[in-house]
Amino acid sequence: MRSESDARRGLTRRRLLLGGAVAGLGAAATVGADALIRSGAERGGAPAGDAGPAAAPALGTATVPFHGRHQAGIATTPQAHAAFVALELAPQTDRDGIRRLLSVLSDDAARLTQGRPALADSEPELAEVPARLTVTFGFGPELVRRVAPAAAPAWLRPLPAFGIDRLEPAWSGGDLLLQIAADDPFTVAHALRMLLKDARSAAGVRWVQSGFRRAAGSVPDGTTMRNLFGQVDGTVNPRPGDADFDELVWVGTDGGWLQHGTGFVLRRIRMDLDRWDRLDRGGREQSVGRYLGNGAPLTGTEEHDEPDFEAKTAIGFPVIPEFSHLRRARSDDPRERIHRRAYNYDAAPAGGAISDSGLLFASFQADVDRQFVPLQRRLDELDLLNEWTTPIGSAVFAIPPGVEEGGFIGETLFAASA
Amino acid sequence: MRSESDARRGLTRRRLLLGGAVAGLGAAATVGADALIRSGAERGGAPAGDAGPAAAPALGTATVPFHGRHQAGIATTPQAHAAFVALELAPQTDRDGIRRLLSVLSDDAARLTQGRPALADSEPELAEVPARLTVTFGFGPELVRRVAPAAAPAWLRPLPAFGIDRLEPAWSGGDLLLQIAADDPFTVAHALRMLLKDARSAAGVRWVQSGFRRAAGSVPDGTTMRNLFGQVDGTVNPRPGDADFDELVWVGTDGGWLQHGTGFVLRRIRMDLDRWDRLDRGGREQSVGRYLGNGAPLTGTEEHDEPDFEAKTAIGFPVIPEFSHLRRARSDDPRERIHRRAYNYDAAPAGGAISDSGLLFASFQADVDRQFVPLQRRLDELDLLNEWTTPIGSAVFAIPPGVEEGGFIGETLFAASA
Repeated sequence: MRSESDARRGLTRRRLLLGGAVAGLGAAATVGADALIRSGAERGGAPAGDAGPAAAPALGTATVPFHGRHQAGIATTPQAHAAFVALELAPQTDRDGIRRLLSVLSDDAARLTQGRPALADSEPELAEVPARLTVTFGFGPELVRRVAPAAAPAWLRPLPAFGIDRLEPAWSGGDLLLQIAADDPFTVAHALRMLLKDARSAAGVRWVQSGFRRAAGSVPDGTTMRNLFGQVDGTVNPRPGDADFDELVWVGTDGGWLQHGTGFVLRRIRMDLDRWDRLDRGGREQSVGRYLGNGAPLTGTEEHDEPDFEAKTAIGFPVIPEFSHLRRARSDDPRERIHRRAYNYDAAPAGGAISDSGLLFASFQADVDRQFVPLQRRLDELDLLNEWTTPIGSAVFAIPPGVEEGGFIGETLFAASA
Repeated sequence: MRSESDARRGLTRRRLLLGGAVAGLGAAATVGADALIRSGAERGGAPAGDAGPAAAPALGTATVPFHGRHQAGIATTPQAHAAFVALELAPQTDRDGIRRLLSVLSDDAARLTQGRPALADSEPELAEVPARLTVTFGFGPELVRRVAPAAAPAWLRPLPAFGIDRLEPAWSGGDLLLQIAADDPFTVAHALRMLLKDARSAAGVRWVQSGFRRAAGSVPDGTTMRNLFGQVDGTVNPRPGDADFDELVWVGTDGGWLQHGTGFVLRRIRMDLDRWDRLDRGGREQSVGRYLGNGAPLTGTEEHDEPDFEAKTAIGFPVIPEFSHLRRARSDDPRERIHRRAYNYDAAPAGGAISDSGLLFASFQADVDRQFVPLQRRLDELDLLNEWTTPIGSAVFAIPPGVEEGGFIGETLFAASA
């Protein structure tokens, strides 16, 4: 034991030093709209529970601003853990009730994301480790209908039915979405509970879906996630800072109350790991269109190489098969792209199975009908991966813009119908 | 976005430097029996998937040795994530079948914990981030019966029934335990799946229970865990290196095949957060016997202050109430202590509830009857916390000693009956 403890203590001492360095960096760097790491010291001292002379490690004290033009948790570098929650409004929760609900939850989120307890927090010590917590709100069709029926964007409705779908109501729909994400699973659990407590008089839980990516600091930053099939997943994802990210993701001036907001789709995709494992490696690479080792397209050598769909094998077949996921997911229209922010799920297997695993395919796009639906249609028609994947949940939400201090998420929707 | 990415990149660069520093430390320090952080470089180069010039961050590449006198995952500093799995042997799995099963799983664990794929690993890239992975094996009564019926320790049986128990078969019992723990949730998911695949011809899944603590690096090392009640939980836990740790945890020379092994109890304790929240802060501190702020006993000011059970209030009542958890959990006999290695659980709430949360109370002790049972009996009789907690699962396993390279976990049990 001794040697590991010593090594870990050494690690911690260095991480403490690190906290200061990162704080300096944060202060020196240009302050972006929705992301700034602030150290505990900058937030006014170390958390009360930390008796040591130095601040807590940077991972735990890092915060993402809650206020801004856009909501946090969209362009934010994905945190390690996320819980997606769909609430169902109680029958008696009317327009005023929804306003009260959103005001309370916005206030909770503004506090918790900055490492401060919520107003009615009965376990305030549990709020002291924000770990880049973000809370992102989304509105389902029913919520918009109760507040401002004419304000719903055309795409705010269940996706069209796809042939591959085997949707279960338990994982679909919902009136109010909370995406709660942080680098610490305990932080997610406390925020989830705090928000549900404050929602309970106005809304009940329809579903909770929890997911994970690699732990923060486990692999180099910028590493593309692998899913549980072992695939490198998300290589061509538009990234914040890309030339067309803003246009693809944020609703523009013609969006009315939704300007600076976005559209959100969550698909729960069950992955049949057992049958996938029976396929040999070549077969798996053919169905993906990429090498499993580093995610390079079958016509390239590096992950980010541009695939060559014209390349043919010696006997004249395309090197990247027509039926491959890579080929089917790619549109000729660059405006048909989406911003993915997916998480893996791994639930306890039941009934003789040895896995209940898959992907929480979360994506943000300015217009669900124009961007998500054509992509999904291509995949539905002919994507070999469909053999091993089944969508079992589906939900669409409108993500309102962010708010300034003192505002509440959704205030533009109320203004739209005033 | 820009400023956060920059700050995170800075963090990563420093973590990379750190990797080297920690490696140096590890090499210089005395090598303990079951814990040594080794860098990717020491293990023979960076993982294949890592194209960067530097090694992956220290968190992902850290390993805990699999081989040694004791199994890993007991004296190992608790990792952030754990899955506890109970397998049920198939009816036809006889002594030889169990030997084959344990040989294969031991080999899998020896590889995966060192960041190498298992032999039949169809997703070898997923094994590249060990993140302090440990796999700890435990034997239930039925496994021991099939191998060497006379070899079972007296305490290897279900715990006596306690008045507070509301045990559900779905969370109780089992023939073979796997405790799979790592600082990265993805690592746990891959190891779990790999082991279940290799077990499936000989054993099925009885239950899987997943839990979490704070993320690695989120709070300073050595911080006592809080549970979801907000309590500081585990202050008096005997720690590796304490004078009596070895005696409390490891089975001695009279243990036969179990020498250098230990006894394991897992209790799934549901915590009624809703009713707990209705109690005011003073009431909660009375029922725990400690301040919630920093975990100090009600007669002290710091977490590790010795409680004074004789101290009285102005009107003559004990300051630390007789019915408090702290008072009831404390024995006058120092040999009645246990080594706790608990995890929190937070499952998706169902049926109108807003939480399904609690504690996976995992504990290691040389003799379950002598150490765990008297403690549990005192708590069962009179512990105010019972008002808000309910044991809903219970399982006891014998944890065999560790093995040297080439051996398999359980080999001493087979030798005992040869």
